[in-house]
Amino acid sequence: MDFAFDAKTEELRHQLLAFMDEHVYPAERVFAEQIEARTDPWASVPVVEELKALARKRGLWNLFLPGEHGAGLTNLQYAPLAEITGRSPQLAPAALNCSAPDTGNMEVLTMFGDEEQRARWLRPLLDGEIRSAFAMTEPDVASSDARNIATSITRDGADYVVNGRKWFISGALNPACEILIVMGKTDPDAEPHRQQSMILVPTKTPGVHVKRGMHVFGYPDGDHGGHAEIVFDDVRVPADNLIDAEGSGFAIAQARLGPGRIHHCMRLIGMAERAIELMCRRAVSRVAFGKPLAQQGVIQDWIAESRVRVEQLRLLVLKTAWLMDTVGNKGAHTEIQAIKIATPSAVEWILDKAIQTHGAGGVSQDFPLAGLWASARMLRLADGPDEVHKRSMARRELKGYL
Amino acid sequence: MDFAFDAKTEELRHQLLAFMDEHVYPAERVFAEQIEARTDPWASVPVVEELKALARKRGLWNLFLPGEHGAGLTNLQYAPLAEITGRSPQLAPAALNCSAPDTGNMEVLTMFGDEEQRARWLRPLLDGEIRSAFAMTEPDVASSDARNIATSITRDGADYVVNGRKWFISGALNPACEILIVMGKTDPDAEPHRQQSMILVPTKTPGVHVKRGMHVFGYPDGDHGGHAEIVFDDVRVPADNLIDAEGSGFAIAQARLGPGRIHHCMRLIGMAERAIELMCRRAVSRVAFGKPLAQQGVIQDWIAESRVRVEQLRLLVLKTAWLMDTVGNKGAHTEIQAIKIATPSAVEWILDKAIQTHGAGGVSQDFPLAGLWASARMLRLADGPDEVHKRSMARRELKGYL
Amino acid sequence: MDFAFDAKTEELRHQLLAFMDEHVYPAERVFAEQIEARTDPWASVPVVEELKALARKRGLWNLFLPGEHGAGLTNLQYAPLAEITGRSPQLAPAALNCSAPDTGNMEVLTMFGDEEQRARWLRPLLDGEIRSAFAMTEPDVASSDARNIATSITRDGADYVVNGRKWFISGALNPACEILIVMGKTDPDAEPHRQQSMILVPTKTPGVHVKRGMHVFGYPDGDHGGHAEIVFDDVRVPADNLIDAEGSGFAIAQARLGPGRIHHCMRLIGMAERAIELMCRRAVSRVAFGKPLAQQGVIQDWIAESRVRVEQLRLLVLKTAWLMDTVGNKGAHTEIQAIKIATPSAVEWILDKAIQTHGAGGVSQDFPLAGLWASARMLRLADGPDEVHKRSMARRELKGYL
Amino acid sequence: MDFAFDAKTEELRHQLLAFMDEHVYPAERVFAEQIEARTDPWASVPVVEELKALARKRGLWNLFLPGEHGAGLTNLQYAPLAEITGRSPQLAPAALNCSAPDTGNMEVLTMFGDEEQRARWLRPLLDGEIRSAFAMTEPDVASSDARNIATSITRDGADYVVNGRKWFISGALNPACEILIVMGKTDPDAEPHRQQSMILVPTKTPGVHVKRGMHVFGYPDGDHGGHAEIVFDDVRVPADNLIDAEGSGFAIAQARLGPGRIHHCMRLIGMAERAIELMCRRAVSRVAFGKPLAQQGVIQDWIAESRVRVEQLRLLVLKTAWLMDTVGNKGAHTEIQAIKIATPSAVEWILDKAIQTHGAGGVSQDFPLAGLWASARMLRLADGPDEVHKRSMARRELKGYL
Repeated sequence: MDFAFDAKTEELRHQLLAFMDEHVYPAERVFAEQIEARTDPWASVPVVEELKALARKRGLWNLFLPGEHGAGLTNLQYAPLAEITGRSPQLAPAALNCSAPDTGNMEVLTMFGDEEQRARWLRPLLDGEIRSAFAMTEPDVASSDARNIATSITRDGADYVVNGRKWFISGALNPACEILIVMGKTDPDAEPHRQQSMILVPTKTPGVHVKRGMHVFGYPDGDHGGHAEIVFDDVRVPADNLIDAEGSGFAIAQARLGPGRIHHCMRLIGMAERAIELMCRRAVSRVAFGKPLAQQGVIQDWIAESRVRVEQLRLLVLKTAWLMDTVGNKGAHTEIQAIKIATPSAVEWILDKAIQTHGAGGVSQDFPLAGLWASARMLRLADGPDEVHKRSMARRELKGYL
Repeated sequence: MDFAFDAKTEELRHQLLAFMDEHVYPAERVFAEQIEARTDPWASVPVVEELKALARKRGLWNLFLPGEHGAGLTNLQYAPLAEITGRSPQLAPAALNCSAPDTGNMEVLTMFGDEEQRARWLRPLLDGEIRSAFAMTEPDVASSDARNIATSITRDGADYVVNGRKWFISGALNPACEILIVMGKTDPDAEPHRQQSMILVPTKTPGVHVKRGMHVFGYPDGDHGGHAEIVFDDVRVPADNLIDAEGSGFAIAQARLGPGRIHHCMRLIGMAERAIELMCRRAVSRVAFGKPLAQQGVIQDWIAESRVRVEQLRLLVLKTAWLMDTVGNKGAHTEIQAIKIATPSAVEWILDKAIQTHGAGGVSQDFPLAGLWASARMLRLADGPDEVHKRSMARRELKGYL
Repeated sequence: MDFAFDAKTEELRHQLLAFMDEHVYPAERVFAEQIEARTDPWASVPVVEELKALARKRGLWNLFLPGEHGAGLTNLQYAPLAEITGRSPQLAPAALNCSAPDTGNMEVLTMFGDEEQRARWLRPLLDGEIRSAFAMTEPDVASSDARNIATSITRDGADYVVNGRKWFISGALNPACEILIVMGKTDPDAEPHRQQSMILVPTKTPGVHVKRGMHVFGYPDGDHGGHAEIVFDDVRVPADNLIDAEGSGFAIAQARLGPGRIHHCMRLIGMAERAIELMCRRAVSRVAFGKPLAQQGVIQDWIAESRVRVEQLRLLVLKTAWLMDTVGNKGAHTEIQAIKIATPSAVEWILDKAIQTHGAGGVSQDFPLAGLWASARMLRLADGPDEVHKRSMARRELKGYL
Repeated sequence: MDFAFDAKTEELRHQLLAFMDEHVYPAERVFAEQIEARTDPWASVPVVEELKALARKRGLWNLFLPGEHGAGLTNLQYAPLAEITGRSPQLAPAALNCSAPDTGNMEVLTMFGDEEQRARWLRPLLDGEIRSAFAMTEPDVASSDARNIATSITRDGADYVVNGRKWFISGALNPACEILIVMGKTDPDAEPHRQQSMILVPTKTPGVHVKRGMHVFGYPDGDHGGHAEIVFDDVRVPADNLIDAEGSGFAIAQARLGPGRIHHCMRLIGMAERAIELMCRRAVSRVAFGKPLAQQGVIQDWIAESRVRVEQLRLLVLKTAWLMDTVGNKGAHTEIQAIKIATPSAVEWILDKAIQTHGAGGVSQDFPLAGLWASARMLRLADGPDEVHKRSMARRELKGYL
């Protein structure tokens, strides 16, 4: 047992921290101004492209992706880097081409795409030239159980025809989003885990109607492509667009989940660190009742409690990454659920305290805290509400006693 | 001791509930559409004016205001009515001319305004013809302690000149907002409670610069006039605009607080009831893992816990209202603090659970829950963070032991 | 609506507070010494008898019992008196002949006992000459659902024969406990609510084997008769000992529950007030890090939060008492559940903070806090765990939406 | 970074788990019977001595002690073993000669004792022939700040004379407790960290008055020597009994704290695992409302939440152990505080839920849960209340921002 990062990780952490200091944090204000000034409320802005170019030049690119297509890091090596990007979540993940949902989609194409699919879609995604979205969640069913997905994908000659309604399709409103991975049912009569398939649907395909952006606590999240409601109305794509084979949709979704969850959790920890930093800065600079907040017991309690929680979360996430590397995503299933349960709610708590320390400013656009809070809160629901994961974890724990 | 409402209250509750069912709830969708469709992002919309006319015709008008200028209700009689309006907080309070911050401003003018001030500003406010704002909070000081307010109000011949920066001035962006009550210092050398004064500043006065609207968790709250940042740059108004006398600002602020807080708390309870209703509706209609959410233990736990909390909150608020009526706002000071501490956080908890029950939809614009949550969260800060009130309450409790 | 106590209540509160100050609080130390010195670990001690005589002389006697047999108070009148006795729960309820489980047993005999049963058992209980116990809970079944009770009560000629195992039969180890009200099944084939009956079993009856006292967090609770495990082994009593009729056991249990729960809750609130008092006394007298605990923010937070919670609990309990008086125990069912859910856990929280304020002393026999805590904790289980009540409350709330 | 135990740890875990299964768990019932049957309420019982002999024969002895006197394990190697002993905390630590407070005392003697002191006291302690106690806490001062300790240690010729009052001196009532390490002031005029010294006082020395055992939530904890109140009344011991030098008491106390805290935390985690096991066993075997508790959502929620918390705690404790091994106790200061804050309260929560799952039995002597709970609760106070540690941690975190 050893709690030190390996040399490669330390080296990359060093480089990334320098990149954050030199480029990312200074770009935050520019980003806010460009977002404010743009005309298309869903478009990306120039500063992101500049950061991407800089990051790529430094080799800070596609760090999330194991194997030859990406940086070749293990999950354990990537985890602390993802955490750092979480400190500036609107900029840093995008700058490194490590943003959700593109990361998950690139993994799917790497693992399950055929050569043509990889050439057509994976290549430009890896190069950061286009964006993508993952269309799974539906308003009408409890989508945390992938077997409930109701969108139909029907074979018709040389094509598949897609019909259904999706929502909270993150990133899909971004004009750069050229491709959707859509989950639906190809065979409603197969056994439950073999009914679903995934298919590639270019955003511009006729019948793809992007209706609106869903808000998250008032945020349209336009800076990272929003959360689209999309109706698929007799959308026709060539049969070659199917990923892997009919009936493999559930398995692909499962494969996609583990890394997706751990990346979210690592970034959340970075967000928590940012919140603690802001809370401390505020505490030492703001005076109330004749002394700085930093000298008031309740504020001290929040800071200590935040630190204690973050340290625990980080270790659990790192151990989970290590398990994914050593025994695989399936072997790490319980831990992946554990971090999904633990992280968003703890980070939400920390953000709440940081907000409270900032007074009314804390809920406003003048500090990143309220926006970060909304992200953390959303992650108590995204990918299945906490309650679904707890239920599943408990059943697994109880198995040993039956 | 008697926990039944008196006959007048029951009669008004009956009328108000009918008004909600017949007019307010059906208008919610219309309101959303008109808000979406308007061009000025801060303007009020026609349906609100229609509701106001209807409410006034039914005598459901200015219920908040005791005495001859208003409906003449006690706090205890008004409280359950305010709760009902909280069930549709974007529409019902405005419809009844019982919205913050106008209510507090009308109280100030009723109690402290001179005849001319009442004719010029109170009359149109009572008639619902104009809106108003209360400019106290400043970004640069801990404004929960009114003595920290730094804006200057300086006598210069027949005028006062106002200089300072305010923010979170709710309602001030509404084009109908014609008058600001501004708090500032007329005499920085007086003893701490006598330095402040309040002065009437018409919104259109030269030097009043409304810079922007502050967001609350992504919500600009444009439907009720937003939360303005305002710079007062050598703003000159006639000396007659001073309310009461120089040095009475702190006392006026205190007088304004009690009713303001209890109204907020009552409406919050109505919001909680709305949340419980939505949570139950969702629970019986949504199926996950083969049975309705309503049959799942964790959801049941939330519903019961919500009910238990709301019942307690309501009683404490009603008792506080009764104390205000019987021993006055000062005599009810501890209880007013208690409800300010207890209500926002408990209602926030209930809203969080209602959101969680709704899945991703819960955080979105498709249900009122996320917006209500943001209001409840804001009220843990507005008018002083919880921590300030707890500190004060504890010191009072401890006094008996020193 | 009126939050003031009526004149009779005020008069009795006044008398009782004086009695507490003059006799009960000073007797606490004597009580502790006599308990320490006695040889029978379950026996009552002289000071209790002395207090009983004093209380009875002052008319502070059987206050819990409505109607002619008792003091004739309403629930609403009794509630604030029960609260006061909760401030010294080992002495005051016993002194006033208002201790559980005797109170509930006297109610059962008053309502359901026949003349002979009342003469034989109710009279000496009302006179405080004997004690009693209520034998319902069983180790082998989830006893919160009375229908699960498995002890058999079988008619055999002129007798009933009782067989079964009970535990946590509070008070039964007290040598003064002469009578048990035993719940069991007379007809396992009847419909579920009509299978049970209650029967009077003198403690000395052959076959009644008191096996041991159950502990509550290390406390044998010998000062109030402990919590017995009792085996009923072919216990034979005359058929006349049956209370009311065969099959009425479930209904009697229900009738007994409401007042029992509200009395517990009122006393818990008195315990909480005692805890707040001790917490404040400690806070002003103990210095750490150079200033009294009373000046430290976290302690202030606890005190304020405790006050806020107690005020809410009290009002809900009082309203519940008022409902029981005005619409009956059935009409108050939801509120009775609500106070059972809300009170023990909130008071447990307050006691925990009072303990923490006392350092190691807080968990010890030198302060009453740890013992009070154990009582509050036990009440999250006694009479059904919180979770059972929440489930039931939620189902009732949800009914309106089905 | 590597989350696997090393080979030596795995081997010892394997042996210890076998020892627990073969000897410790089966001895629990015997232990309870012998405790019940003994006449001296503070004496140890035969089964413990038998287990000690067995453990020593297997080499499971003094595992806590690094270096040549003990088993020579690192903190990281010992931590998972200490956890396992925490699963049966009344027996396993004693069986392995790894019980507090002896462990800390042996460490002190190893590090700071001179040869004679080691021969006289360390040797029989290492051999498990005698027991010891650590007399630091005083009733009259906030003892979490060691500088407050008021007991005097005064040089008088060839002797030191000790005067003062201590309480919660764990283990001191055990008849086998032959030696006390007493902390007091040798020089009240020195600078604050140099006023204290530690001195060896044989329990039998004239003037050592053991007054009574302090209870912890009703538990006298007689099975492990209780928690004594001791008055030192002109207790005279040879000057050679001073440990190290005058003025080194504070430093010795600090050195003793780190390992003491981490051992407590590891055992707490073992207690939590035991609680989860009992909770699961109960959940699958107890039926309520027609289905096993294991199928009820709230119980599942508790089980999952417990698992999630334990996993995080364990990792933080292990990392702390690793830091102590790699950068020393001082370098691990923040983490040592963090585990002291995090562990007792989280384990208390888990135990509370396990108790609740067991109904009334959970609070009784029939399950170990209530006793374990009292231990965990005590550890929120022992060695300084949580609030002291949080204050200190926050100040350290804030330092970077001043």
